[in-house]
Amino acid sequence: MPLLTRIRGPRDLDRLSLEELDQLAGEIRTFLVDAVSKTGGHLGPNLGVVELTIALHRVFDSPKDKVLWDTGHQSYVHKLLTGRQDFSRLKKKGGLSGYPAQAESEHDVIENSHASTVLGWADGIAKANQLKQRDSHVVAVIGDGALTGGMAWEALNNIADAKDRPLVIVVNDNERSYAPTIGGLANHLATLRTTDGYERFLARGKDLLERTPVVGRPLYETLHGAKKGLKDFIAPQGMFEDLGLKYVGPIDGHDIEALESALARAKRFGGPVIVHCLTEKGRGYQPALADEADRFHGIGPIHPDTGLPVKASGADWTSVFGDEMVELGKERDDIVAITAAMLQPVGLKKFADAFPDRIYDVGIAEQHGAVSAAGLAYAGLHPVFAVYATFLNRAFDQVLMDVALHKCGVTFVLDRAGVTGTDGASHNGMWDMSILQVVPGLRLAAPRDAEQVRAQLREAVAVDDAPTVVRFSKGAVGPAVPAVGRVGAMDVLREPGTDRPDVLLVSVGALAPMCLEIAGLLDKQGISTTVVDPRWVKPVDEALAPLAERHRVVVTVEDNSRVGGVGSAVAQALRDAGVDVPLRDFGIPPRFLDHASRSEVLTEIGLTAPDIARQVTGLVARLDGRFDRTAAEVDSVEPARD
Amino acid sequence: MPLLTRIRGPRDLDRLSLEELDQLAGEIRTFLVDAVSKTGGHLGPNLGVVELTIALHRVFDSPKDKVLWDTGHQSYVHKLLTGRQDFSRLKKKGGLSGYPAQAESEHDVIENSHASTVLGWADGIAKANQLKQRDSHVVAVIGDGALTGGMAWEALNNIADAKDRPLVIVVNDNERSYAPTIGGLANHLATLRTTDGYERFLARGKDLLERTPVVGRPLYETLHGAKKGLKDFIAPQGMFEDLGLKYVGPIDGHDIEALESALARAKRFGGPVIVHCLTEKGRGYQPALADEADRFHGIGPIHPDTGLPVKASGADWTSVFGDEMVELGKERDDIVAITAAMLQPVGLKKFADAFPDRIYDVGIAEQHGAVSAAGLAYAGLHPVFAVYATFLNRAFDQVLMDVALHKCGVTFVLDRAGVTGTDGASHNGMWDMSILQVVPGLRLAAPRDAEQVRAQLREAVAVDDAPTVVRFSKGAVGPAVPAVGRVGAMDVLREPGTDRPDVLLVSVGALAPMCLEIAGLLDKQGISTTVVDPRWVKPVDEALAPLAERHRVVVTVEDNSRVGGVGSAVAQALRDAGVDVPLRDFGIPPRFLDHASRSEVLTEIGLTAPDIARQVTGLVARLDGRFDRTAAEVDSVEPARD
Repeated sequence: MPLLTRIRGPRDLDRLSLEELDQLAGEIRTFLVDAVSKTGGHLGPNLGVVELTIALHRVFDSPKDKVLWDTGHQSYVHKLLTGRQDFSRLKKKGGLSGYPAQAESEHDVIENSHASTVLGWADGIAKANQLKQRDSHVVAVIGDGALTGGMAWEALNNIADAKDRPLVIVVNDNERSYAPTIGGLANHLATLRTTDGYERFLARGKDLLERTPVVGRPLYETLHGAKKGLKDFIAPQGMFEDLGLKYVGPIDGHDIEALESALARAKRFGGPVIVHCLTEKGRGYQPALADEADRFHGIGPIHPDTGLPVKASGADWTSVFGDEMVELGKERDDIVAITAAMLQPVGLKKFADAFPDRIYDVGIAEQHGAVSAAGLAYAGLHPVFAVYATFLNRAFDQVLMDVALHKCGVTFVLDRAGVTGTDGASHNGMWDMSILQVVPGLRLAAPRDAEQVRAQLREAVAVDDAPTVVRFSKGAVGPAVPAVGRVGAMDVLREPGTDRPDVLLVSVGALAPMCLEIAGLLDKQGISTTVVDPRWVKPVDEALAPLAERHRVVVTVEDNSRVGGVGSAVAQALRDAGVDVPLRDFGIPPRFLDHASRSEVLTEIGLTAPDIARQVTGLVARLDGRFDRTAAEVDSVEPARD
Repeated sequence: MPLLTRIRGPRDLDRLSLEELDQLAGEIRTFLVDAVSKTGGHLGPNLGVVELTIALHRVFDSPKDKVLWDTGHQSYVHKLLTGRQDFSRLKKKGGLSGYPAQAESEHDVIENSHASTVLGWADGIAKANQLKQRDSHVVAVIGDGALTGGMAWEALNNIADAKDRPLVIVVNDNERSYAPTIGGLANHLATLRTTDGYERFLARGKDLLERTPVVGRPLYETLHGAKKGLKDFIAPQGMFEDLGLKYVGPIDGHDIEALESALARAKRFGGPVIVHCLTEKGRGYQPALADEADRFHGIGPIHPDTGLPVKASGADWTSVFGDEMVELGKERDDIVAITAAMLQPVGLKKFADAFPDRIYDVGIAEQHGAVSAAGLAYAGLHPVFAVYATFLNRAFDQVLMDVALHKCGVTFVLDRAGVTGTDGASHNGMWDMSILQVVPGLRLAAPRDAEQVRAQLREAVAVDDAPTVVRFSKGAVGPAVPAVGRVGAMDVLREPGTDRPDVLLVSVGALAPMCLEIAGLLDKQGISTTVVDPRWVKPVDEALAPLAERHRVVVTVEDNSRVGGVGSAVAQALRDAGVDVPLRDFGIPPRFLDHASRSEVLTEIGLTAPDIARQVTGLVARLDGRFDRTAAEVDSVEPARD
């Protein structure tokens, strides 16, 4: 990597010739495939923006100018060009974040991984630049998919409003996305595929692909033949111009010279401009380009030549849900499914294949996913909206005001709930069990194993007059955790083995094995423990308070923010029942979590069996009075019992 | 009202001639001005949709066809035509809701008063109609202002996607709104004002205004002269057509014949169609048309001839905030303000007049309000985003992921927090103190009086590395409630008068007078009570747990959902400090509240001083053991003390 290793900051790009820049692009692609195949990460999106990122940093002067990335997983090249070339611990504890991070570099701004935010940020920064009369530019890079999000529209409408406020929007229009369609925008613009610029882009692509070092064989045919995989979407020029936004494009997003020219013009313009770049996701990497399912969007470790995963993954929560949806679809023709541009990741692909008329991909548009679900339910269907837990935040108002207020039977399936870890603060699904507590009538299930996913999904879709939620973790599903009894509608996972038990341990969802481990550790301390899994954590089971009253301490353990979560709900239910048994609630502390593996995060925040057992032991000891008295006092007291 | 009183349902319109329909429209306007000036309500919007509503119910067959209203305050005419003509208790307990209500009529669907939802509902219902092969239509009425909301864009993109799915969108483009501009959409389309159709509309308007019975004098000049008040926005035809939506218009929204013709064509079309109607807010009512500030959008009781309020209002929370913002604006040039299309209602008009460069109206776009605030703060300004508490729900994800995660100094001012009452379930601001609890680093103030509004606003804008929230009630601000002491950063409002007090009463915000009343009632029962106002309710003051430990019971009282609110946060803080003093938390029960006056609602939910005092007395008695034993037992025990 003779050129790449010499780039310590963006200004080191200034002295390179165009030929050297092309060489640098090649080095970067080789670097990315090599590095990301070892660590895992977002490969495809970054291969697509190599030339674009180089051109951006040639034309704009970061950090004086602000270069902003939407859904920052496309910022790897930006990292390489701004002094961060050690990717050996990408997304690992202490290593580089998979997203921009202000703590890593003064060149980074937006850390949020939720889509469609960049235009709003850019509008705010541009307004401040104008007000403070700064000689500073702001350029926002947004994917075509993210334009389907309502936030992008709200921002465009505002940005277009100020003709004299400089702001450059780069639409990174790549040819693949999770979603095969993103609605009217896509359909209308299919016609533009036949334009001269697009044909030139394809022709040039052929040339470049053949020169890219990591490619095993010429890829032009693959690309050109993959009509189905090509997103029939170029650019909403007409619309942008209707809004009064200056439009430049389409530009071949792999032609550095053309990019620089367009970006320089946009920078000089003095008002809001859209620069429309056509890029190719997975550019230069055969396995990515040949894969229609876009599995290279984000990957685990892979073999760099074949693109095959280094280790095969077992059954996961997502596929258990996905398979059961197909069964439910066969049994009930009123069940329909909704995804927000993530058909495959949320496990709905099989349902979509089996029932193509009953799947709705709404684009990156969680608000619409929820509100259209209300309409579907009102009109007699039962929609199941599968979405990552963290992304449901976008639709909170719609869950509350459209689904719950109208008593609509809609089931929300929240995947990647709890600590997900390596994708950092904004990908953890640690808010849902708190904010959803306030929604009147909503019922929330946290299944503990595969069997419960299936059972509770069935219970959820049977409710037709209120929202139901089924939330589960990321990744592999653990072994079955059988119930040994039942209290109310709660599963007893462990009996205390005594008539006067000490601790009632309330286990939430996938933490059941950990809770059984805690009970085992407490047992060794002579503390008898009942473990229950409420299954439905909202509303709190009416049998819980009487059960709690027969214990000395109640402990709740959940993979969710401690604040306002299941523990708080249980505590309130006990207060309301007049049961003032001391309670301790364990969960995620109320702060943003740095990226690290799930187990590293859980250890760091003390959400482990030994940590919790130790604290509960201490509490029980205090209640016994053992810690309130000195050892001597205990000694002096003991004989008196005789 | 010879015609109106004979209309029992939509089909009674069928036999009326066009002339009779015009007469009916006149009767309806007279009815509305007469009725709403007595009760208060949304006058302007309903005067604007009289002919449109008649035409809709002539062309579509409700309830088989679904007629959907966005921000349903424009549904009064719809109510009159669907069997509801008793407006005497509009928005009052037991009377008609100010919005559509499924419990009122089978003709009503969407009860949510939050804007921009209707297209999502319509998309869902249309999808269900298609899937179930129903011969049923769906028509959605949306204002031009609501089109600036991201939800509308997400829905349009989806609706346009299915060319064979019938759905009629009526854009009710009236000429006034709170917001003088709604961004690029508005600016671009100003050119359309000169089109033939628009001129015809104005000309016809002159004719109709002169014929409308409630008008005192011809209004054409007023209307035509009010260039500044006219919203320079007609319709994004080009854009709609780019999306692939069939466009019909612009139609004179006060010409029933033209409306029926356009709607009938749209109904026959067999796919998604936009019918663009030009209407006039306040149509036919002189005071509304002559008022540039649009005070007739929603009103209290007024004198029908003059339009002046029946009773003058005193100082309210909003104006206290608004005046202090002007002072802050003078002192600090880095303070900027944001509104989501509600400059006047949230009290920012004076600030906007004083600092026209430092006010940003983002349209009905709460998400953009919050995310652009993050950008402004990142770039060195301090934005204050003033918004109704209930509408902040729309921006939860942005408060969390854009403002808080990035440690941006943004102040959110939540007006109309707590029970607002007459506007019904979706207007109560009863969720903010719960959902915001989970946001790391966020600080939340609940000022109890005008002085505290000013003081805490100043404290909030002094924080530059985290989101701050100042939330206050609707309407008149009460008298000052002085502090008699200080514990930590908490104000003591009442000392218990004993060294061993019984109850620690934690008062939140405007409920301070009620809490002092509770303390007085408890005092009469011999229960000594400390009352503290934490002022900042998040984070919980560290001095609270030690203070609580010196009491026998902790009681919290808040004007917010009981679930996950301040009470829950205090309870958790006590648990974390190992203080297991019994706590009881009073607030709004976790259900949607029917419309009624604020005091009626508070009485119904038991959030009154006598109710709370009674329950606390019972609790203290139980702790005393008085209720655990029968009177006889008490008698038998008492003598033993001697």
